[in-house]
Amino acid sequence: MQLSELAKALGGRTVDGDATFEVSGVATLDDGGAADLGFVRGEKFAIALADKAIGAVIAPVGVDVGGRPVIRSGNPSLDFARATGLLHPVARPEVGVHPSAFVSATATVDASASIGPLASVGAGSSVGAGSVLHANVAVGDDVVIGQDCVLHLGCCVREGTRIGNRVVLQPGCVIGGDGFGYEFDEKGEHAKVPQVGNVVVGDDVEVGANSTIDRARLGSTRIGRGTKIDNLVQIAHNVEIGEHAVFISQTGIAGSTRVGNRVFFMAQSGASGHLEIGDGAFIGARGGVIDDVGAGERIWGFPGLPERTWHRSQAIFGKLTEIVRRIRRLEKRLGGDDA
Amino acid sequence: MQLSELAKALGGRTVDGDATFEVSGVATLDDGGAADLGFVRGEKFAIALADKAIGAVIAPVGVDVGGRPVIRSGNPSLDFARATGLLHPVARPEVGVHPSAFVSATATVDASASIGPLASVGAGSSVGAGSVLHANVAVGDDVVIGQDCVLHLGCCVREGTRIGNRVVLQPGCVIGGDGFGYEFDEKGEHAKVPQVGNVVVGDDVEVGANSTIDRARLGSTRIGRGTKIDNLVQIAHNVEIGEHAVFISQTGIAGSTRVGNRVFFMAQSGASGHLEIGDGAFIGARGGVIDDVGAGERIWGFPGLPERTWHRSQAIFGKLTEIVRRIRRLEKRLGGDDA
Amino acid sequence: MQLSELAKALGGRTVDGDATFEVSGVATLDDGGAADLGFVRGEKFAIALADKAIGAVIAPVGVDVGGRPVIRSGNPSLDFARATGLLHPVARPEVGVHPSAFVSATATVDASASIGPLASVGAGSSVGAGSVLHANVAVGDDVVIGQDCVLHLGCCVREGTRIGNRVVLQPGCVIGGDGFGYEFDEKGEHAKVPQVGNVVVGDDVEVGANSTIDRARLGSTRIGRGTKIDNLVQIAHNVEIGEHAVFISQTGIAGSTRVGNRVFFMAQSGASGHLEIGDGAFIGARGGVIDDVGAGERIWGFPGLPERTWHRSQAIFGKLTEIVRRIRRLEKRLGGDDA
Repeated sequence: MQLSELAKALGGRTVDGDATFEVSGVATLDDGGAADLGFVRGEKFAIALADKAIGAVIAPVGVDVGGRPVIRSGNPSLDFARATGLLHPVARPEVGVHPSAFVSATATVDASASIGPLASVGAGSSVGAGSVLHANVAVGDDVVIGQDCVLHLGCCVREGTRIGNRVVLQPGCVIGGDGFGYEFDEKGEHAKVPQVGNVVVGDDVEVGANSTIDRARLGSTRIGRGTKIDNLVQIAHNVEIGEHAVFISQTGIAGSTRVGNRVFFMAQSGASGHLEIGDGAFIGARGGVIDDVGAGERIWGFPGLPERTWHRSQAIFGKLTEIVRRIRRLEKRLGGDDA
Repeated sequence: MQLSELAKALGGRTVDGDATFEVSGVATLDDGGAADLGFVRGEKFAIALADKAIGAVIAPVGVDVGGRPVIRSGNPSLDFARATGLLHPVARPEVGVHPSAFVSATATVDASASIGPLASVGAGSSVGAGSVLHANVAVGDDVVIGQDCVLHLGCCVREGTRIGNRVVLQPGCVIGGDGFGYEFDEKGEHAKVPQVGNVVVGDDVEVGANSTIDRARLGSTRIGRGTKIDNLVQIAHNVEIGEHAVFISQTGIAGSTRVGNRVFFMAQSGASGHLEIGDGAFIGARGGVIDDVGAGERIWGFPGLPERTWHRSQAIFGKLTEIVRRIRRLEKRLGGDDA
Repeated sequence: MQLSELAKALGGRTVDGDATFEVSGVATLDDGGAADLGFVRGEKFAIALADKAIGAVIAPVGVDVGGRPVIRSGNPSLDFARATGLLHPVARPEVGVHPSAFVSATATVDASASIGPLASVGAGSSVGAGSVLHANVAVGDDVVIGQDCVLHLGCCVREGTRIGNRVVLQPGCVIGGDGFGYEFDEKGEHAKVPQVGNVVVGDDVEVGANSTIDRARLGSTRIGRGTKIDNLVQIAHNVEIGEHAVFISQTGIAGSTRVGNRVFFMAQSGASGHLEIGDGAFIGARGGVIDDVGAGERIWGFPGLPERTWHRSQAIFGKLTEIVRRIRRLEKRLGGDDA
C-alpha cells in the first residue's frame, strides 16, 4: 500500500516526504526493514530512529524523523494500530458452512458468515452477518451471535447466550457455564442450584483465551459494551459489568458483583461477591476487594486498601525487622519489665 | 405446572391459597411476573414482597406472603432450587450417537446415552446410561463414564480416567492431563517423568469450566464423592480429595496433597504439595497453606495463619504508618541515640 | 520385560540378583506388587522396603534392598522415570489421518504422523514426522509443528505459530491467542491493536492444560528450548523466555517481559510487563515481581522482596498484635501525651 493511500484510510492524514512510498507491513523501530512502517510517539523517541533501517514512520507534526517519509498524526500509536489492521488483514475461513461443520437444521446462519471445519451450532441458534466461527468452536442451542463477531478456535458458548456485534472470543474461552451454586440438602450434602439464567455479552466485547463467564442463576450475567477481558479471567454468575471496563489476566469476580463503567482490574486481582464497584475504579495487581469501591477509587492489596495506604504499609512491611529492632532498642533503654 | 403438583414433587409440601395456580417458571422477587414462583427465607424477606408482581412463593410456615398462593417449606431455598430444576429442565442432545460424532468401534455407549455433534469417544471407553456428551467433547481411550453424567461443550477427558455417576463437567475442563514432573538428566536438562496413573472422579462431583485435574504419576488422583470444583481450579497429580469438599474459582492444590471431607477452599487460594488438610478445614480467599492444616482449622493469608491472627495482623498492616509514627514519637521523647 | 533388558535400555546398568526377573510395571514402594519395579534413593529409604511386597527396585550401589533383584544406578529417580516410559509406553492414535479429521488440502502431514478423530489442520500448515494430534485438536493456518510432538485432546494452536520438535501440549492449552492490547480512540473507547506477530515454541517444551500463550503484537512471543509450563499459566504477548525455565501452575507473565534461562516461577506467581528476569532467578509461590530481577536472585512476596527479607517480614507480620502491645507498653511507661 502506498503511504498516501494509508494516510487517507487513517482519516486524511498529511504525508511529509515521498507519498508514493510503498509500505509492505508494520514493525517495531528495532526490527523494521526498508519497506516497513513504524511509529514514534514524540521527539524523545525520534532519537532512536538514528541508526534504524525502518523505511517510514507515523509521527507527530514537527518531529524530525531523519528524512523518512512520514504520516503526521496527533495520535501516532492509535494510527499505527489502525495501520496494522489495514496492512495485515486477519485471514478468515471461507464464507459459508464448512462441510465438516455441524449446523442444526433449526439454526440460522447468515449467508455472509463463516462456519469453520468441525464447528457446531445448536438448535435454534443464529449467527449474524459477517461473523466467523473458526474450527472446532462449539455453540449450543438458542444462542444468538450478532454481526461481525469472531469466535476463535475451540471456544464454547453454551445454550441461551446472547452475543452482540463485533464481539471477539479468543480460543478456549467458555461463555455460559453453570454458575457455582449449591444448597445443603437434608443429608448435609450439596444439592445443585440449577443455573437457568444466561449470559448477555454487549457489542465490541473481547474475551481472552480460556476465560470463563458463568450463566446466571436467574436472569443474566451481563458484560457491557466495549469491555475487554484478558486470558484466564473468571466472571461468576449474575455479575453485571458496565461499559469499557478492563480485566487483566487471571482476575476473578465473584457472584452478583456489579462493576461500573471503565473500571480497571489489573492482573491476578479479584472482587468478592455482591459488591458494587463504582465507575472508573482501579484495582491494582493482586488487589482483592471485599467491600464496595466508590467511583474513581484506587485500591491495592488484599483485603483492599486505598492505594496510598497500601503503598506505605507495603514499604514498611519490607522493613519490619528494622521496626522490631527499634522497639527492642526503646525497651532496652527504658530497662526493667519490658518483656 | 400447578402449584399442587410442584408441592407434591418437592416431597409433599402444603399449599396455602390457590393450589391450582399455574406456575410458568422461577424468578427473583425483583424480576418475577404474575406467573412466576419466587421464595422468601423468612419474615424479614417477606417485607420485600409488598410491591412485587411475583405470583407465588415458597416460604416458611407462618410467614405472611401478601395473600399469594404459597408452598410452605422448612427450607425454602433448597425447595426453590429443586423447583427450579423441575420447572426448567435442562435441554439435552437427543438420545443416541449424533452422526457427526466419532465413537470408536471398541467403545460402549449405553442406548440411553447421548453423544452430541462432533464429540469423540476413544477405544475401549464406555458411557453409562443416561449420560450426555455435548458437542465437541473429547473422551480418550479406556475412559469409564458412569450413569447420568453431563459433559458440557468441549471438555476433555484423557485416557484411563474413571468418572462416577451423576458427575457434571463444565465446558473446557480437562481431566487427566499429565502431572507436572521432571527429573534433571545428565546434561542438567528436564527429563519428563511419565505420568502413568489416572484420575478417579467420584459420584456427584462437579468440575467447573476450564478447571484442570491432572492424572497421577503412579496410582490415582482422586476426587471424592460430592466434591464441587468451580472454574479455573488446578488440582495437581496424586492429590486426594475427600467427600463434599468445595474449591472456589482459581484455587490451586499442589501435588500429593490430601484434602479431607468437607474442606472449603475459598477463591484464589491454594495449598502446597504433600500436605494433609484435615476434615472441615476452611481456607480463606487468597489463603495459601504451606503446612498441614488440622481438622476444622480456619486459615487465611499466605503463608497461612490462623484466621484470628491473620485478621488482626491484617488490620494492623493497614495502619503501619501510624505504628512507625508512634515509634518515632517514643524515640523522640527518649532523645539521644535513637537512630 | 526382563530386568536385564531394562538395565540395558537404561544405558547398561548392573543387575544384582535374578537378571531374568520379569517386570510388569512400575509402582510406588507402598503399592507395588511382586511383579512391580520401584526405586529407592538411598540407604534411608531402603528401610521402608522391609515389609513391602514390591518385587524389584532401582537403587544405588551398596544399598541393601532385602535380597530383591535390583538395577544399580547412580541416579535411581531418573532411571525410574525412564523405566516408567519403557514399561508404560503411551498409546497414540493410529498413524495417518483419521477419516473424521479435517486436514486442509494445502496442509502437509508427514506420513508417520497421526491426526486423530475430529482434529483440524488449517491451510498451509505442516505436521512433522511422528507427531500426534489427538482428538478434537484445532490447528489454524500456516502453523508449523515439528517432529515427535504430542498435541493432546482439544488444544488450540492459532495461525502462524511455530512449534519445535518433541513439544508436548496438554489438553485445552491455547497457543497464539491475541495479545491484550488496546488504544483509546477519539471517543475514549478501546480500539483493538491488531496482534499480527506469532508464537515460537522451542524444542522439548511442554505446555500444561488450559495454559495460554499469546501471540506477539509484532514479532514473536518466544518460549525457549526445554522450558516447562504447568497448567493454567498465562504468558502474554511478546514475552521471551529462555531455555529450561519452569512455570508452576497459575503463574502469569505480563507483556514483553524477558525471562532468562533456568528461571523458576513457583505456583500462583507473576511478573509485570517489560521486565528482565535474569538467568537462574527464583520467584517463590505467590511472588509477584514488579522490577527487574538479577541472575540467581530469589524473590518472594508481592511486590517482590529478597527471599530473606520477605521471610523475616512475613514472620513478624504474624506477630503484629504483639508488636503493637509492646509499643503500647512503652507509651504507657513513658506516660503523658503518647496518643
